[in-house]
Amino acid sequence: MTQDATALSRPPSGQAPTGTLGAGTLLRMLRDGKPRTRSELASMTGMARSTLTQRVDALLASGLIQPAGEAASSGGRPPTTFAFAPSARIVLAADLGATHARLGVTDLSGRILAETSADVAIDLGPTTVLDWVIDNGRALIAEIGRTPEELLGVGLGLPGPVEHSTGRAINPPIMPGWDGFDVPAYVGAQLPGSVFVDNDVNIMALGEYFSQWSDVRHLLYVKVATGIGCGIITDGTVYRGAQGAAGDMGHIQVSDGGGILCRCGNTDCLEAVASGPAIATKLTQAGIAADTALDVVHLARAGTPSLTPLLRDAGRDIGEVLAASVNLLNPGIVVVGGAMILAGDHLLAGIREVIYQRSLPLATQNLRIVAARTGEGAGVIGAATMVIEYRLGPDRVDALVGT
Amino acid sequence: MTQDATALSRPPSGQAPTGTLGAGTLLRMLRDGKPRTRSELASMTGMARSTLTQRVDALLASGLIQPAGEAASSGGRPPTTFAFAPSARIVLAADLGATHARLGVTDLSGRILAETSADVAIDLGPTTVLDWVIDNGRALIAEIGRTPEELLGVGLGLPGPVEHSTGRAINPPIMPGWDGFDVPAYVGAQLPGSVFVDNDVNIMALGEYFSQWSDVRHLLYVKVATGIGCGIITDGTVYRGAQGAAGDMGHIQVSDGGGILCRCGNTDCLEAVASGPAIATKLTQAGIAADTALDVVHLARAGTPSLTPLLRDAGRDIGEVLAASVNLLNPGIVVVGGAMILAGDHLLAGIREVIYQRSLPLATQNLRIVAARTGEGAGVIGAATMVIEYRLGPDRVDALVGT
Repeated sequence: MTQDATALSRPPSGQAPTGTLGAGTLLRMLRDGKPRTRSELASMTGMARSTLTQRVDALLASGLIQPAGEAASSGGRPPTTFAFAPSARIVLAADLGATHARLGVTDLSGRILAETSADVAIDLGPTTVLDWVIDNGRALIAEIGRTPEELLGVGLGLPGPVEHSTGRAINPPIMPGWDGFDVPAYVGAQLPGSVFVDNDVNIMALGEYFSQWSDVRHLLYVKVATGIGCGIITDGTVYRGAQGAAGDMGHIQVSDGGGILCRCGNTDCLEAVASGPAIATKLTQAGIAADTALDVVHLARAGTPSLTPLLRDAGRDIGEVLAASVNLLNPGIVVVGGAMILAGDHLLAGIREVIYQRSLPLATQNLRIVAARTGEGAGVIGAATMVIEYRLGPDRVDALVGT
Repeated sequence: MTQDATALSRPPSGQAPTGTLGAGTLLRMLRDGKPRTRSELASMTGMARSTLTQRVDALLASGLIQPAGEAASSGGRPPTTFAFAPSARIVLAADLGATHARLGVTDLSGRILAETSADVAIDLGPTTVLDWVIDNGRALIAEIGRTPEELLGVGLGLPGPVEHSTGRAINPPIMPGWDGFDVPAYVGAQLPGSVFVDNDVNIMALGEYFSQWSDVRHLLYVKVATGIGCGIITDGTVYRGAQGAAGDMGHIQVSDGGGILCRCGNTDCLEAVASGPAIATKLTQAGIAADTALDVVHLARAGTPSLTPLLRDAGRDIGEVLAASVNLLNPGIVVVGGAMILAGDHLLAGIREVIYQRSLPLATQNLRIVAARTGEGAGVIGAATMVIEYRLGPDRVDALVGT
């Protein structure tokens, strides 16, 4: 029930991902929802008829595709069409934040069938938090009349760095007890299906991408909340890097931070100068008591004039790091999400100001910089998408359906 | 003869790159050099026998594969095997620097068959420089007894930002006359084959990757010379971003630059504080006359004590930007190349110092930081690789061989 790092990412360029034409190639075509006949599938793939028949039968037996009526006939008995059946299996997806957890059950198209949320502090440790996921997951599954045996997999987002190849959190600063804990083994021992773990920002980036921006090839998602992190999406896939640590933007140094000590031990990390708690500290120093990101949001919404320049400055600091990221990655869109985006437009204005000032013309000529559109649900959708894209990947469906 | 941006990069995740099993799938398998029989190819692909025969015949007719003797027989006439024929076509590849140009002809495995180089200033403008490439390219091709009609394509690296979708330089700071010039159209009007253009750093990254580090999935290549730029390789492919501008590291701001004005109009860009000319300026201010990156290299090799702290500081500045890049991209290896790497170990030592100080433990636990291994030839190999990987891509061989 552990993860396979190599298979989770793109294959090396030297290896054809489709050396053999398996059931996964057929399923990938059918996942667009359009019903097709055997003849259409044969001509689309160049697959031998006997091979095709065997693989269509295996997909039908698995329930992943189903007969979808008859096609128009040119004489004789009209041929049967087949279509993807997103209700064939279910996915359990959890977005675990620092203090709050969201949980959903989706179908194989990522549509949420049932969901719940609760205040669950991540620092209660892995067994308590994961037991909450497992117990409430079972309850949600029962609520919609399904069974855990129908699970394709479980997707989990954690609020800290995750080694994606093993599904373990690595040195997570706000997650006591989680360092190195084998999340896939623990969850996999109690629920069927594969278990996939990623950090919450990657999950949210994937959810935002799939639900809003799937026409954009290169997306950079930045979460500004208690911490600051980013998720990099290229061609619908999370860019994770060598250890799955890509996107860890919160500890990049800003130039005029004033020597603020970060919890990581360095000074002037972006997170230490521009996160919700960092702004709260500066507000408190200005005589207005605040502690958390949500305190800042509430004060901003109540209209607190001295907050405006602080939000603008935080936006500029974030913009400085994003300008470097834009030069490096040349994304088509930068999406800014997280609780702090609810504090009004000054943060985003500061971000835009510095990106357009500091990034090169070629990198910004078509660049959009927008607030996240998907609300709190993005993490759950993204966690489900992670499971679906992996398990229904063209190379892996054969193992799933037994061809 | 223009470029196709979409096809040059990875297909969007929603589209199967191999909806049909064409000749390209067969060629991709055979490019490992191992001879295979028709039966082996059929069982590896699941391709219908009639389709397979037609595609093998087309590949044989194109010369891209050739008969490679007989396999062991289990009785009866032993079956013929087929193997990739890298000598079937040739590639012309040029690495055009600010003042120097290198040109090579390779086979389809990227092996250099003939090469030449000369002092060619890029600021002579596109027609003069490209005429040099075309004329000397024709001469090199004749020298090895081949003809331009055998060209699979021409690959060019330019020392400035290139819009990869059109093959044009965009606002290149040191290339008067090149801005918006249609390089593929100009070269394509005089030489057969497709023309591909990228910036010189991407080309060198690709060459270094293919010749030295193809076992590493995520490579960051930094060139430190007259300018500073980086090439990002993931899974054997150059990451180019939305406009092909990814990797433009030279204009990221460093924190303690001292307010040095950069030619781009901003202050304290990495290139303005840590490039070869920037170090030369500081050396001149210290009373030792120097102007170019090569001057600095010569002085370093001659043993100039006051240069050591300057190189170390430049390394630290580069390390600051690289530390941010490592947090963002989590590469498996950082390769430092360019002329300045010849100035000794102090530059690399400064880079290593700051990356290990500033990057997160998860991103650096297995990170290697090394000097480039391939010398000046990396650019030519990389430019050839760009052509070969595109034109022999699985989706594009059908068009090439007419199936």
